[in-house]
Amino acid sequence: MRAAEIDEEFPVVGIDSPALEAARLLVEHSLPGIVILTTDGQLYAVLPASQVVGFVVPSYIQDDPLLASVIAESVADRAAEKLGGKTIRELVPQHQLTMPVANADDTIIEVAAIMVRLRSPLVAVMKQDKLHGVITASRLLAVTLSCGLIDNRQLLRTVGTRRLSELYS
Amino acid sequence: MRAAEIDEEFPVVGIDSPALEAARLLVEHSLPGIVILTTDGQLYAVLPASQVVGFVVPSYIQDDPLLASVIAESVADRAAEKLGGKTIRELVPQHQLTMPVANADDTIIEVAAIMVRLRSPLVAVMKQDKLHGVITASRLLAVTLSCGLIDNRQLLRTVGTRRLSELYS
Repeated sequence: MRAAEIDEEFPVVGIDSPALEAARLLVEHSLPGIVILTTDGQLYAVLPASQVVGFVVPSYIQDDPLLASVIAESVADRAAEKLGGKTIRELVPQHQLTMPVANADDTIIEVAAIMVRLRSPLVAVMKQDKLHGVITASRLLAVTLSCGLIDNRQLLRTVGTRRLSELYS
Repeated sequence: MRAAEIDEEFPVVGIDSPALEAARLLVEHSLPGIVILTTDGQLYAVLPASQVVGFVVPSYIQDDPLLASVIAESVADRAAEKLGGKTIRELVPQHQLTMPVANADDTIIEVAAIMVRLRSPLVAVMKQDKLHGVITASRLLAVTLSCGLIDNRQLLRTVGTRRLSELYS
């Protein structure tokens, strides 16, 4: 299987959308991250949910995490106010240098290796410089497990009742 | 609000469970990651989904991602076979050095800072050395947005129809 065969449609947000909208999209659809497009439809960034959380953390705290402990609870509770009126472009000012992106004809292992290396729960799949779809970690595991299970069943027919663990040890 | 007030129950897996079981748990419940406990119930690791994907990527490929491109499609499709019979302990051999863990009385900003810094979509909340619950990125954003929205509504009553973006610029 190739990336373009297992990727899925995924909601995208424009770079000039309110950051609040992106955060809400993620929460309402329980997405593992967000895909951000430029005004002309090019891929701008693929942000894991953990980095979207960064939208509500002041940058001086991201740079020095110990500072987080001196923020009063009442102030911390109002973290989302930081999002008020801000666009995604203001919060993600630079094009990502290492974007979790795969090619349409990459194998499952190539996609998996990108996820692991970039610690990204989603990978954008590109076909002829356009976004073809997204593969989430959950989707990738589901596909590999079902492949594995089919193979295991075929194998079981061959090997009878021997424990599979013996075969793979 | 403090971490222990917003954390939630979360499925856990034992360190000697089959790795396949952990991967299936993640897929079936669309979890952002897994929480692994030792045999005596201590926290052993908190793995984001992107790192659970690492279970199906041979370690020599994780060390040298370019190798992924030379794995044949037919072999890549059988990646899950690597899990056959393996336990989590075999695949996550060492106690995590930097575990995404918060204290029960940490503020939202402290939890958020841990998520951002460790790129983890879930943080384990500890109370008196025991796992009290888990806060996911989605949960944290939902809580901060609802706090923010309440504040914004209160603010709107005060400031009338002025754009919120003017207030936070």
